[in-house]
Formats: sequence, C-alpha cells, structure tokens
Amino acid sequence: MTTNEAAQLLEQFRAGKIPQEKVLRAFQSAPVADLGFAQVDTHRALRKNFPEVIFGAGKSPEQVVQIATTLQDHHQHVLVTRITDEHARALRKKFKIAKHHSLARCVTIEQKPLPKRAGFIAVVCAGTSDLPVAEEAAVTAEVMGNRVERAQDIGVAGLHRTLAKLDWLQRANVIVAVAGMEGALPSVLAGLVSKPVIAVPTSIGYGASFGGIAALLAMLNSCASGVTVVNIDNGFGAGYAASQINSLATDGHR
Amino acid sequence: MTTNEAAQLLEQFRAGKIPQEKVLRAFQSAPVADLGFAQVDTHRALRKNFPEVIFGAGKSPEQVVQIATTLQDHHQHVLVTRITDEHARALRKKFKIAKHHSLARCVTIEQKPLPKRAGFIAVVCAGTSDLPVAEEAAVTAEVMGNRVERAQDIGVAGLHRTLAKLDWLQRANVIVAVAGMEGALPSVLAGLVSKPVIAVPTSIGYGASFGGIAALLAMLNSCASGVTVVNIDNGFGAGYAASQINSLATDGHR
Amino acid sequence: MTTNEAAQLLEQFRAGKIPQEKVLRAFQSAPVADLGFAQVDTHRALRKNFPEVIFGAGKSPEQVVQIATTLQDHHQHVLVTRITDEHARALRKKFKIAKHHSLARCVTIEQKPLPKRAGFIAVVCAGTSDLPVAEEAAVTAEVMGNRVERAQDIGVAGLHRTLAKLDWLQRANVIVAVAGMEGALPSVLAGLVSKPVIAVPTSIGYGASFGGIAALLAMLNSCASGVTVVNIDNGFGAGYAASQINSLATDGHR
Amino acid sequence: MTTNEAAQLLEQFRAGKIPQEKVLRAFQSAPVADLGFAQVDTHRALRKNFPEVIFGAGKSPEQVVQIATTLQDHHQHVLVTRITDEHARALRKKFKIAKHHSLARCVTIEQKPLPKRAGFIAVVCAGTSDLPVAEEAAVTAEVMGNRVERAQDIGVAGLHRTLAKLDWLQRANVIVAVAGMEGALPSVLAGLVSKPVIAVPTSIGYGASFGGIAALLAMLNSCASGVTVVNIDNGFGAGYAASQINSLATDGHR
Amino acid sequence: MTTNEAAQLLEQFRAGKIPQEKVLRAFQSAPVADLGFAQVDTHRALRKNFPEVIFGAGKSPEQVVQIATTLQDHHQHVLVTRITDEHARALRKKFKIAKHHSLARCVTIEQKPLPKRAGFIAVVCAGTSDLPVAEEAAVTAEVMGNRVERAQDIGVAGLHRTLAKLDWLQRANVIVAVAGMEGALPSVLAGLVSKPVIAVPTSIGYGASFGGIAALLAMLNSCASGVTVVNIDNGFGAGYAASQINSLATDGHR
Amino acid sequence: MTTNEAAQLLEQFRAGKIPQEKVLRAFQSAPVADLGFAQVDTHRALRKNFPEVIFGAGKSPEQVVQIATTLQDHHQHVLVTRITDEHARALRKKFKIAKHHSLARCVTIEQKPLPKRAGFIAVVCAGTSDLPVAEEAAVTAEVMGNRVERAQDIGVAGLHRTLAKLDWLQRANVIVAVAGMEGALPSVLAGLVSKPVIAVPTSIGYGASFGGIAALLAMLNSCASGVTVVNIDNGFGAGYAASQINSLATDGHR
Amino acid sequence: MTTNEAAQLLEQFRAGKIPQEKVLRAFQSAPVADLGFAQVDTHRALRKNFPEVIFGAGKSPEQVVQIATTLQDHHQHVLVTRITDEHARALRKKFKIAKHHSLARCVTIEQKPLPKRAGFIAVVCAGTSDLPVAEEAAVTAEVMGNRVERAQDIGVAGLHRTLAKLDWLQRANVIVAVAGMEGALPSVLAGLVSKPVIAVPTSIGYGASFGGIAALLAMLNSCASGVTVVNIDNGFGAGYAASQINSLATDGHR
Amino acid sequence: MTTNEAAQLLEQFRAGKIPQEKVLRAFQSAPVADLGFAQVDTHRALRKNFPEVIFGAGKSPEQVVQIATTLQDHHQHVLVTRITDEHARALRKKFKIAKHHSLARCVTIEQKPLPKRAGFIAVVCAGTSDLPVAEEAAVTAEVMGNRVERAQDIGVAGLHRTLAKLDWLQRANVIVAVAGMEGALPSVLAGLVSKPVIAVPTSIGYGASFGGIAALLAMLNSCASGVTVVNIDNGFGAGYAASQINSLATDGHR
Repeated sequence: MTTNEAAQLLEQFRAGKIPQEKVLRAFQSAPVADLGFAQVDTHRALRKNFPEVIFGAGKSPEQVVQIATTLQDHHQHVLVTRITDEHARALRKKFKIAKHHSLARCVTIEQKPLPKRAGFIAVVCAGTSDLPVAEEAAVTAEVMGNRVERAQDIGVAGLHRTLAKLDWLQRANVIVAVAGMEGALPSVLAGLVSKPVIAVPTSIGYGASFGGIAALLAMLNSCASGVTVVNIDNGFGAGYAASQINSLATDGHR
Repeated sequence: MTTNEAAQLLEQFRAGKIPQEKVLRAFQSAPVADLGFAQVDTHRALRKNFPEVIFGAGKSPEQVVQIATTLQDHHQHVLVTRITDEHARALRKKFKIAKHHSLARCVTIEQKPLPKRAGFIAVVCAGTSDLPVAEEAAVTAEVMGNRVERAQDIGVAGLHRTLAKLDWLQRANVIVAVAGMEGALPSVLAGLVSKPVIAVPTSIGYGASFGGIAALLAMLNSCASGVTVVNIDNGFGAGYAASQINSLATDGHR
Repeated sequence: MTTNEAAQLLEQFRAGKIPQEKVLRAFQSAPVADLGFAQVDTHRALRKNFPEVIFGAGKSPEQVVQIATTLQDHHQHVLVTRITDEHARALRKKFKIAKHHSLARCVTIEQKPLPKRAGFIAVVCAGTSDLPVAEEAAVTAEVMGNRVERAQDIGVAGLHRTLAKLDWLQRANVIVAVAGMEGALPSVLAGLVSKPVIAVPTSIGYGASFGGIAALLAMLNSCASGVTVVNIDNGFGAGYAASQINSLATDGHR
Repeated sequence: MTTNEAAQLLEQFRAGKIPQEKVLRAFQSAPVADLGFAQVDTHRALRKNFPEVIFGAGKSPEQVVQIATTLQDHHQHVLVTRITDEHARALRKKFKIAKHHSLARCVTIEQKPLPKRAGFIAVVCAGTSDLPVAEEAAVTAEVMGNRVERAQDIGVAGLHRTLAKLDWLQRANVIVAVAGMEGALPSVLAGLVSKPVIAVPTSIGYGASFGGIAALLAMLNSCASGVTVVNIDNGFGAGYAASQINSLATDGHR
Repeated sequence: MTTNEAAQLLEQFRAGKIPQEKVLRAFQSAPVADLGFAQVDTHRALRKNFPEVIFGAGKSPEQVVQIATTLQDHHQHVLVTRITDEHARALRKKFKIAKHHSLARCVTIEQKPLPKRAGFIAVVCAGTSDLPVAEEAAVTAEVMGNRVERAQDIGVAGLHRTLAKLDWLQRANVIVAVAGMEGALPSVLAGLVSKPVIAVPTSIGYGASFGGIAALLAMLNSCASGVTVVNIDNGFGAGYAASQINSLATDGHR
Repeated sequence: MTTNEAAQLLEQFRAGKIPQEKVLRAFQSAPVADLGFAQVDTHRALRKNFPEVIFGAGKSPEQVVQIATTLQDHHQHVLVTRITDEHARALRKKFKIAKHHSLARCVTIEQKPLPKRAGFIAVVCAGTSDLPVAEEAAVTAEVMGNRVERAQDIGVAGLHRTLAKLDWLQRANVIVAVAGMEGALPSVLAGLVSKPVIAVPTSIGYGASFGGIAALLAMLNSCASGVTVVNIDNGFGAGYAASQINSLATDGHR
Repeated sequence: MTTNEAAQLLEQFRAGKIPQEKVLRAFQSAPVADLGFAQVDTHRALRKNFPEVIFGAGKSPEQVVQIATTLQDHHQHVLVTRITDEHARALRKKFKIAKHHSLARCVTIEQKPLPKRAGFIAVVCAGTSDLPVAEEAAVTAEVMGNRVERAQDIGVAGLHRTLAKLDWLQRANVIVAVAGMEGALPSVLAGLVSKPVIAVPTSIGYGASFGGIAALLAMLNSCASGVTVVNIDNGFGAGYAASQINSLATDGHR
Repeated sequence: MTTNEAAQLLEQFRAGKIPQEKVLRAFQSAPVADLGFAQVDTHRALRKNFPEVIFGAGKSPEQVVQIATTLQDHHQHVLVTRITDEHARALRKKFKIAKHHSLARCVTIEQKPLPKRAGFIAVVCAGTSDLPVAEEAAVTAEVMGNRVERAQDIGVAGLHRTLAKLDWLQRANVIVAVAGMEGALPSVLAGLVSKPVIAVPTSIGYGASFGGIAALLAMLNSCASGVTVVNIDNGFGAGYAASQINSLATDGHR
C-alpha cells in the first residue's frame, strides 16, 4: 500500500463508501509490509548517497550486469565486489564509465562521484599479500565519499616502518588495519593512536594460520582498547564501517 | 632524556663543551626510549580526559586499591572493571566518591565527572542475562563523557519490541548491540539504521553455544553492512570504541 | 496504538477534526511498533493456550517468583525450566498449585490443565543418564496439552529392547529421541517409523564426547530421513516442537 | 522366509514330517531377518506413496540410471538428488518422463504425480545464493505430494521484506527456512509464527562462516521456540521432514 | 515369547486347537521383540562368564548398590567403574566380598573369580599420572578372567626404559598402552611387537593437550601398523577389548 | 654388525689379536644399531609371513615400482595401497603376477599366496560409498593370510538388513565395521556380537560430517563395549589389526 | 649388563669357560636393555649438572617429598614445579635449604648452586598476569646455572616501553617472551633482535582467547623469523630450552 | 634523517643559523622514523651476513625476479622459498649463479657463500614425505653459513633406525626434527640428546591428522624437555632458528 493508496482509502472512508472496519483491517494487515516498506524506504532515502553493493562471487557475468543495470536506473553509484576479470569485462562493455579496480577485485560505476569528506581514512596493511583485502576496503570507502590514504608493508616485525608513519596515523579519523599471519598490527596501532581501529584479518598465512583464524583470534583478543573486528578477508565490511564513522566525524552530530 | 636535558645537551654542544659526535650518539641511542616515550606521552596527554582502566579479575582487593590510589594522583577518573563485591567494598572504603555499579561489575571514581557529549550511544541487549555485559559497556561509555541510553530484552524472537524502538535507534550516534545464543540482534539492527553497530557476543547460552562462539560467529558473518565485533563478553571494549566514535561525531573532524 | 485508539483517530478524521496528513503519519510512524505489536498480540492470542516459559537458570528464586506472578495474572499455565530445588521451594510456597517435576528440573503452574490431544508423543531415551533431558521434553509437551508416553534405556547397544517397542513407536505421532555418547538412537528409530523424529543430543559421555558434540554431529549426519535436531540438552525445545507437530496432527489443516 | 514358506513349514510340522525343534530353530534364527524383513516391508508398504531417493553425488551416470531403473519397476515416483548435468542427461535419455530441476540439482521421475495435500509448506531463503538448497527442499516436498510455496531474498538485514510476508507465513503448515552467513532467519520467523520451523544452514558465506558452521550454530542456539535443524545444505532432509509434518497436518491423527 | 511358550503354541496348532493363521501372526508380530530377545539372550548366555558392568559416575551410592544387588542375583561377577570412595563404602557394607580397587576407581564383586587364561595382557603406561586409567583397564581385564602384567613409567622420553621391557612386551598376547601428553607410546610399542596394541589416550597434560585430544590424535595417526584406539580415559573399554582378543588367543578358533 | 661379524670379533679377541676394550666398545657403540637391528630383524622374521606395505599416495609410479622391486627380492608378498590407475599399470607392466584391486585402490604381488587361516574376518560397511575403504581393509587382511567375508549396505537406517546377518556376524573372529555419516554401525554390531569390532570412520558425508569427524567421534563414544577405532578412511590399518587378532585366534597362545 | 659384567663375560669366554654361542646370545638379548641403558646412562652423566625436575601438580605433598628425597641422594639440585603452598611447606619442613619461589609456584633444593654462565637470558612478559609463567621460566633457567634478567609489562599496546628496553634485549643471548591475549610480543621482539626468541603463550585472557589458543596461534604464525614456541603456560619448558641454548652460547662448540 | 643530515642540523644550530627549538623539534618528531630507522639499520648491519628471504608463494615470477634484483644490489646472499619450477626458471635466467634446490622448493643466489661454522646442525625427518620441509630447513641453514648433516626415514615405528644414529645426534649443536602423522620423533630425540630440538610438524597424513594439527599438538605436548616448535611445514623458520642457535654455539658469548 503506497501513501497514495492509503490516502484514497481514507477519503473513501470519509466519504462513507467503506466502513471503519475495512480501513482498520487494511492498516492492520498491510502496514507491516507496505507502510513499513515505505518507512524503511524513507529511511533508505536518508542514506541514499551510499552506493548499492553487488557481491559478485558465485554470480555469472550476465547476472551481475543485469543487477547493475537495474541499480543504475535508481542510483548514481554502483559498487560490485569479489569479481573476476570476466565480470569486469562484461560490466565495462555495458557501462562506459565503469572502472575496474583489479587489485581490489571491484568495479565501480559512478555517474558523478560523491564529494569527498574533509577528514581521511587510513587503510594500512602488514604485508603485500594483504593488499587485495586492503584495496577492497579502500575502494569501498572512496566510492562512499571518503578520502582514503594508504600505507602498506608496515608489519610488526619491522617496527621502525610502523613508527615512521606515527604522525600520519594520528591524523586519520579512523584506521582500517589489515593483517594476516599473527594479526598483531591492529594492537600495535591502537596503542599508538586515539581513533577507532577497524581490524581485518586476512586468510594469508599457512600451517596453523587456519585460513585467517589465528589473525582473527589475535584481533579479538587485542590488549589495546579501541579495536573492533570484521570477518576474515572482509575488506568491504571494514571500508563500509569506516565510512559510517568518518561520516559522523565530518558531518558532526545531528 | 627529557626535553630539558636535551636542551642542556645542545647548549653544551654550542658552547663547545662537548663534541658533535657525543650529541649525535645521545640522540641515536636514547630517542627510541626517551624521546619516543615523550612523544607517546604527549599523545597520551591529548586524550588524557579518558579514564585509566584497571582490569580487576585475578587481582586481590589490596592490589586494586593500590593501583587505583596511584592513578588517582594523576587522573580525575578511574574505572575498575570485572570486580567482585569484595573489590567494591575495599575501593569504597578507601575512596569516598567511589561508585559501585554492581550489575556492571565496575567501580568508577570520578573527582569531577566529564561533561557529557551532545549525541547519545544506544546500548541494547537481547535478553536479561546479557545485562551485565551491556551495563559494562554503558558504564564505560558514561565515565568517558558520553550520554548512554539503554534498551533491553529486544531479542529477534519478539521482533515487534525491536521495531517499537526503531525511531530511537535511528537517532543514536552509535549502537552497542549485546546478544548471546544465536547473536542475531546486530544483523537486524544494522539493517534498520545507518549508524555504526558494535556487536558484543556474550557467553550466555548452553549446549552448542560454546560459551559465546555461536554468537561471535553469527556477528562476524552478519549479512548487514556496518557491523564490527569485539571479543565475547567484552562490554568494556565495546563501550570504549563507541566512545571514540561518538567523540568523533560530536567534536567533528580536527 | 491499540485498535480502539486507531478507531478513534479515524472517527476524528471523518469528523473533520484532524487532517488526512495526520492520520497518515500516525499510521506510518506508529504501526510498526503499535499496530505491529497489536498484530503480533492477536497472533499470540491464537496460540495463547500455550504456556509462557521462564528459563530459571541464572535467575534468583525471587526473580523467578516475580516473573511467574506476573505471568499468572494473564495466563492459566506457567512453565519454569532449568530450576534448582531452591527455585522449586520458592515457587511452591507462593503458588499452592505449583507442581515440582524434580527429575525434569521444571515447575508447572496450571490453573486448569489443558485438555489432552488425541494422539500421543513418544519420548524415548538411550540411557538412564539422559532421563533429565527426556523428562524436560515430556513435561513441556504435557503442559502444552499433549499425551506423552515414555520409554527409556533403549540404546542401540541392546537392539532387542528397541525392537520390542517397535509397534508402540509406530503408533506415535512424533518421536522425541534423547541420546548422549554416540547419539545413534534417532537414526535407528527413523529407519523404523514414518513419523517425524526430533533428536536431542545430551552432554552425557566423557572423553571425546566433548559435552555432547559427538552426539550432535551424529544426529545431524543421520543416514535416516526424517530426523531434525535441537541444541544439546534442549529437552524444552524438543518438547515444544513436538507439541507444535502433534497439534497439527490432531487438529488437522486449518 | 516368506509367509508362504512359513506356512509350508508349519504344515510339514503338523503332518509330522519335521520335528518341533526344527520349526523352533527356523523361527529363532530366521525371523529377525526374514519375518522381520517382511514386517519392515509391510511397514514400508504403509508409506509406499513416498518416492525412493537416490543420492547422486559420487555415483556414475550409469550407476544412477541402473538404480533408477530398478526402482522404477516397483515405485511410481523416483527422486534423484545431488546430480550433475551429466546425470540428468543420462536419466532423461532413459526415462521420457524424467524431469530435470536444474537449480535444485534433482531429477524426478513420476509416472503419476501424487495428489497434493490441502495445506502448504513454505520454503523461504535469505539470499539468492541459498536458492539451490531451498529448491532441493521444495522439489523433495513436491514429489512427496505436498503443495510448496516459495519466498526468497527475505534475509534479516531487510526486515520489511520478511514482515511483508507475515500473513502468508502464518498460513503455512510448516516452514523450511534456508540461510547461510549468520543464519538468523529461522529465529526471526519462529518468533512470528506458531508452526514448526525447520532450519537449514547453508555453506554460503566466507571467512569465519566455516562452510556453514556459523549458520548451523546460530540455528541450534535459536532463542525462539519451535526451531529444529538439519545438516548443512541438507535441503532434501528438510523437505522430507516437512512432508512428514504436513502429512500429519492434512491427514489428521490416525 | 519364550521358547517354552513357542513350543506350546506349536503343539496347540498340531493338536488343531488354533488355526495356522494365529501361529503365523504370533511369529510375525512378536519375534522381533520376544524371539529376538530370546535369541540375544541365548547369545548373551554364550558370553555370560563376563561380568556385567555398572558405570558409577553420576549415580548415587544407593542406586549403585541397588543395581549391583539385582545383578548379583544372576551373575557371579560384578564390576563397578568410575566410583567415589563413598560408592565403595556403600558397596563394601552391602557385599562382604566386594573389593575396592582405589587407584582404578573400581569395585569388583566376585563370588568365585574366573579361572585365568594362559597368555597375559600387558598394561603399560607412560607416566605415573596415567596410572588410574591403566589400572581401570587392568582390573577390567582381570575380572574378565585374564592374567594382567603391568609396567609403568616407560614414556618415550626415556627410551631405554621402554627397550628394557622389549622381551616381555613381545611375549604378551595384546598390549594396552596408556598415555597422555603427546601420546607417542603406542606408536613406539607397535613398531617393536607383532601383537595388537590398544591405545588409550588420557586427559593428562595441560595447555594445548586439550584434555587428551593431542594424545588421541597422535594415536589415531600412528605411523605404526596394528594400533587401534579407544576414547580418552576409557580404561574400561581398552581392558574389555583386550580381554576379547586374549580370549580368542587362548581359546583358539571356534 | 651381523651375527657372523660378531662371532669373528669374539674369535679375534680369544686369539689375542684384539684387546678386550675394543670388543666392549664394538658392542657398546654398535649394538643399538646393529645388534638392535639384528634383533628387530629376528623379530621381523617371526612375522615375515606378513607382506611389506607401500603407501602409494604422493609417490610417482616409478618410485613405487622401484620400491616394489626391492621388496620383491626379499619378500614373497607385496602390498601397495592408495594407488591410482597409473600406479597399477606401471606395477602390472613390471610384475606379471601383480593384481590390481581397483575398488580398494590396491595392488598385491603374491609369488605364492599365504595359506588361509581357519576362522574368518567379517568386513561390513554401511553404504556403497564406504566400499573403497572396506575393500582396502579386506584386501589387506586377505594378503596377510586371512579368509575375509564381506557384507555391504547394512546401515542402521535399515536395521532388518543388519539383523539378517546376525548369525553370520556371530561366527566371525573379528569384525571390521566401516561407516561414514553418523557412524552408528559399530555400536549396533558390538551390541549383537561378543567378538572384537574394529571401527573405521570414513570421510563420506557432507555438511557437518566434517570429513569423517562426526563418524570418528561417534565410534570413539560407542556405548557398546568392545569397539576400538582407527583413523578416518584407514582401511589398511583396520585390516592389519584384524589380521593380528585373527592370527591369535587361529594360532592360539604361544 | 654393566660394563664390568660384560668384561667378565668376555674373560670367561677367552678362558674357554663358556662357549661363543653364550656370549653372542648375551649380547643379542641384553644389549638393547642393558648396554643401551648403560649408553643412555653415560649420556645422562654428560648432563648430570642439570637438576632433575618433579612436576608437582596432581601429586600429594607426601609423594613429592618422597621423590625429592630419592633425587637428593643422587643430585645436588632438585626443581619442583607447579606446586601448591602445601607442597612447599612439606618440602621446606624436610629440606632446610629448600627455597620456595611462590610467584613461580616452584621449590628449588640446591646443595651448592651451579656457577652462573657468562651471558644472560632475558625473560620478558606482556602483562602482570603473565608473571607466574615468566617466573617459572626464570627460576628454571637460574637453577640450571644461568643468569636471568627480567622485564615485565612491556606489551605491544605500549610500544614505547618495549623500545625503551631495546639495547638490553639486544645484549641477551636468548629471549623468553611470555604473553597471553593476542600474543604479539614475540613477533615484535624477534623483529628487533638477532637472537633466538622462545615464545610462551599463556592462558591469560577471556572470551575468544580460548585458554591461550589465540596467543599460541599468533606465536606459531609469527611473521618475524627466529621465533620458536612451547606449550601454553609452559614456563618450565621455555626456561629449559633457553638454558640449553645459553649453554651452547657460553661454552662454545664442542 | 640520516646521520649526515643530523650533523648538518647541529652545525647550523652551533653557527646560530637555527634556534634551539627547531633542533629539538627535529629530533622529537623525526627520530622514531629516521634515527630509529638508522638504528635498526645499524642493528641490521650487525647481522648482515644473513641472507634476505623472499617468500615466493603467491608472487608472480616477474615480481620475484624484481625483488631479488633489488636485494642483489645490497646483499651477497639471497634466499627465495616456496617457489614453483616457473619461479626457478625465471630466476636462473636472470642470475647465472642462482641455484635451484628443487626438493626444498628454494632458490639461492650466493655471490660468495658464507664460510661454514665449526659445529653442525642435524636435520632429521620421519618419512620420505617429510623431505621437502626438511630440505627447506637444511637449505635455509646452509645459506646462512652452517654445516648441515641430514638423516631421513628414522620414524619412531622403526626405533632401531633412530638408535643407530644416536652418536651422530649427540654430536650436533642443534637438531631440527621434521615429522607428520603422530609427530612423535622430536620427543624421542629430545629424550636421547642434551641439545635443543626444534620440532617442525608437517601436513603429511590423512584423516584425523587435520593437515598437521595432530603432529603440532603432539610436539607442543612433548613429555621430553628441550623441544620448541615452529608452524606446520615451516622448514624455513626452523632452519633460521637453528642457525641463530648454532651461531651462538660457534661464536660463543659476546
């Protein structure tokens, strides 16, 4: 039931064409679905600057293009994650403005990129193998309207490289720290800065790293305050949450 | 090496009393420890409004009182978590202004409570058994200068109770969602609001809940964007991170 | 917003006292909470013959009595599970009609027991140590208006005892099969009957039974069709689901 | 020993051709196998409307066709699950009436489809990736004589879509709820309806979803009553159990 | 239906007092339960020299005494395992001949001990902490009519002690090897002898021994042929299986 | 040092050609290696009727042929397990008498098969998918000089098929029970017979079977006495242990 | 057979008193046990400066005193680990020179302490809760003749404290790094020094630390080279290995 | 800031060209990065005899060659681990002196091999399947300037082969023990020698070996003192740590 339909219903009632009981029933059975839907829609509208996201893994190139086409009709920004090169080619063929971020395994389609917020998000990673996950976080945050600054290869085994970035880290609004193996980077960073640190464990490692479990557990058990964690390899989730926080930082309290 | 000592060293060098080599060596060997320490100290000063935290579990009442006394000399706010009633009695005997939050298992000692920030943090929990963890988050956030509003018993099995809080949830700057058992609450909330949701799994449950692992995994695998997770039962960690985010929201970008 | 309040709102609108916009907003903002609540309430009314359930573990005797008192005002049947003897004493002191099922660790308060359905639920268990969980299932089903018939000690290591019950098993509408250790009982039963088998793993066992995980996994991997599983030691959940199914069997399709 | 053979034995005994001892031994050693077999056979006959099921995975197309051919001689309905396209081609080549349900990875061979029962089974899933498992459940239930209605993409992160289906969900006799990732859907549904909910965790997800373990644990720990669980990706098992329950609902108590 | 009853039935049939149909039905419906029971009973009779076993853990002293009393009426040998001192006192008070094996946490009641078989079972353990489990195996085997010889403290870290026992080990019919921590003893022994080795992991150890899982996994993965494994701490199971094997060795093939 | 060499050494000493010290040192430093080796050799000789075993997985066809050739020079029986068809072809090309057991994934090379022992080993499995593991056990036992009788598809979900084999099962000297999924077969068998049951979990199953862990745990937790367990899919290990036990049964105590 | 006995045997042979065959058999049957034993004994003698170690946990005070008394007769240094205060009192009552290291939960009995080696072992820990494990390592190393220097509370969340110790860390021969929670300390240290780092995970932590597993996995997955790991809480093992390494460093290559 | 730049800064200050405040700020903000870097550099210089290491897995041949080329400019020794044949060909094409260790999956580029230390490192493994990991350890240690001696196939199931190597094992400075399956080898070795044993679990095995977890747990739980452990299959880590220890042994205490 759309707002228009609801208004008509009420007018029919006022005009005596339908009994009160019928109006009540309509609102009792429908609203959760339809008014509720409208309500969430409004709520969606409040955040419609944010791009819709398509998870590409397990979908065919055709399916991805089809969903992207539908989204394009309603949204200025589309983000597709976890894609293969084949997905990327199909999307770029369809959308001239589509941009393939190959390291991040993402495609973005931005009719008019969002203006960037004042502060920046720092995306750091421990090793070069963690780069794809870090880039997924960075691209996600960028398409959502954030400035992102990157630093890589600042693992805890070479502490001087971490410390060399200290001033820069302290100026970020929020830090996304990506690490595999023993996952110690977020703890070290959170001990050095006062801003939120979002930790992303990666499945990088071998033997008893168990596909990222070792890093995940380390991050959950961080002895430093201010660390929250997302799923293994979930760069998108970290970039999304970082954007939410940076948005609060930049736009202030409403 | 303090700044004063460094200045004296330089003056001695300018006065020709010591050779250049000696100055260089002093800065090369010492700085990591001492200048580095000073630097972190400055950085600590930037956030010194935040209370120091004592983890009470496994410490004797005497030890807790002793550490609290030392902190009291330098800080206006002390937070002690994971305490027993015995800890609380010992602290209240020593500090007249100590306040025992028995449900949260915390004691706070605030010589002059911090002024509260404009926005608020919502702390919600699924069941009454999750209350101690939720309260730990709430008390932590409050002593760090945040307004906290609470809602309890809004588990996903009674969705109407969750939906009844929708407007309120959307006005919060950040949500701390505490849940045991199947840990579905954060996913439901993050689907309804656009603010960051910090999920806290609790060890509540039995059988295959494995002391909170079921809830932890559910939260890490949330299908809703914007959820980050802390360790099982780590109300303190969630309250601390929520305060960092709310601080960004309220104070804007610097 | 109750149905009464909604009716008043509509009448005020028809009487021209409030504009259409106000009616629409009331339905748009409130329904999820209030009409939604009413709706679920109605829906609850449809099944209000079912007793409310209090999970006693981790609650003080006073808390349990207080919740039970509130429920008593609205419901004719109260079930309290996972209680200690102390809980039982407090409840029986307050409610003369309270009945303590000590083996099942439950108390039931039935002002007027529900009439029993025609068919019966079979509750069987493998060993005497599984009895408390089996009894929790049986008591739960009984208070919800079901006839329950019990058989114990029919573990797979003494197959003749299981086979001796074959005819009886085939006459049940639904079977709750409770087993610890290797948890093979539900597979054996589901191979012999055509009715649904609800499997309840128990934490009985030692060594590599891992508190019921061995039995849980065995039940999930049953090679016999028609087995569904509840959480370890969750007699209540099995009894509840069995009652739902028996209710369908007895009352037919509506 | 068939009934005929048993009768002959008895007549030989009455005619004095064989001693009592020989009759007794025949019944003591054989019956478990042969009479027992007959008994189970009879019992099988009681449910022979149900199709036999062939698990295709790990079998060659030739093997599957061979087993299906044997079954065809005795049964009017054959269900083959977990097949590849190659299996499907081989079966359709052999059986003209074979139907390939490609999404469900099943083939059904129905000489004369069973009449459908009055009520319906609702098969719902959280995401499009869960569709193959949901379809396996739906096809299984359909071939066993049930009407199945489907809803997809009603995950908990978009609650309005779930609520929009509320009335429909409440009319189903039994609900099969299929979900991967955090597996919260069954809990939400069981809180909204009074019918049995059979939860099917899927292996969909990444990182700490551990091939469906996260969803499985969430479902086992559901805070809502009335949820029972089958193995990860076990759509067949859920469809089978749902059919058993719907059969009880439709045919009433016998 | 006992053999006597079956004979009477047949005689009534031969005498023309009951029709053939009635005889057939009696054998068709009853045998699984009654003849089947008789059959297993006979089969039980074949091994009735073996003592019945009561698992004491989780039973009250009264329950244990009651079960033991019932068994005493039919059996000459009773074994009670996993008992406390309280169980032992209650049993010895009731049965003058009861013997308390305190290290093994067992009580045996033997009216006339079984004659001992010719060969012997070697029960060896790695450390003194493994002794209770080893003794449970030894006592179990002894009460079942086996000679048991023991060796302790022959862990792999002091190989010379193991090798010093080589000749003795090679003379045993079967070896029960009990070990906690890294559980390497059975592998070493199975490499030195040609007889079956039954490995018993114990929960002895700390840290990453995980209550015996480390030892259990080591034993399952033994690189030496001829090792089979029982559950963690399951001395009884090992002693029982060892007795079955020794019985075969001593009594030869039947 | 061979026995011959040792004798020569002693003679040289008696002849005064070498000092006592040299003899002592030779025995002190060498024996662990050489006499020890000789001793093990002797001990090996005692069981040299047993074929040497080559684990084929991970070795090239050339390597397997080369090892087999070396073994052929000293042994009359060679067993190669876990082979591919390619291994088999290479072995059969080299050895005319080589026999490829394709289902068991084994090759045997028997110059003169061992005479078969009197009793037999029963190898049973629950489902057709368990056949390769069961055949590996059977072929292993056969090449070691045992008569093996097989039964397949006697899973616990169709109990009448198991019971039909009861008499046969009771006549076996030892039973190898192979099962995947819920792994209940060994428990059922051990409750019916008095002979040792060696349980082999297989990696057959899906979802929460975890590659055989569910079956492994079920078997370790068997409620029936007399079950011992080998590693997942370890048909060879079970066949080897069964042969050791059957050897004891047939040859009696020495 | 001791060396003396072997010599006598040879002389008897040379004197013609015993045949060659008897000498050969003596060496063939005995050496593994006795010469082997002697050999290991000699080898033991080479390291007899090292104290024998008694693991106190699970032993009664009387047992510990008895074993310590036996050891005292042959050794100048006795180390008892994992003791309670009761153990300590019993030992100090018996041995005047016994020293109770209460934090380390050890007792040492040194008739004449070993001379200390030149270099030193650094024992560092992350938090005060890790101190008991660190002290166990330190006391173990000290009683074995090493100088030990300690540093505590240098966790990675306060990096400046770690860096302040850099020069000292680089001078140590070997570092024992003790840490719970996320276990990142050894990685940080191994990145800063070139000496071996022995990592000891502790069971300190809560929630998803799983009794030290999080720290253990982090240490095994260290991205820094030169880290080896011992069991959770195994301070003794780390101290022992550190002493072996320091012994090599100090005494040079032999 | 390099030492040269620091010197210039000081001279400018002495010459009165810049104020003291500027010098202090330069040292306060920069040193952590630059002087700190220099410091670590110096510290690196102390150990620059050690080759840099490139982890090849997951890198393209081009990337590996590029990194190797950069390292070649500054270092005389380059080690590349976990390579494919393709990596090796690319490296050998670029560097004439590159050496491909195919079994170890390594390439070394040594302009002038390091002089070998006096003592040797023993690298032993249990089975031929463990060879690649053992060789990775051996090649790592060799390129770092150590003499390595190897022994293979000395698993605990054939103890005489282990004992035959006893004298040799006791002469090594440090032992790297590589084993899969039940991982018992390090325990056996550590019981026989007094030198440090570095245990490397391998992923060799099947069933419940869980990719090396069984061996890893066994090694962590070793009952023999002096065993430390590295990650599963981490031959490089073991060789590196062994080299550090052998370096201490050979070069003595500094």
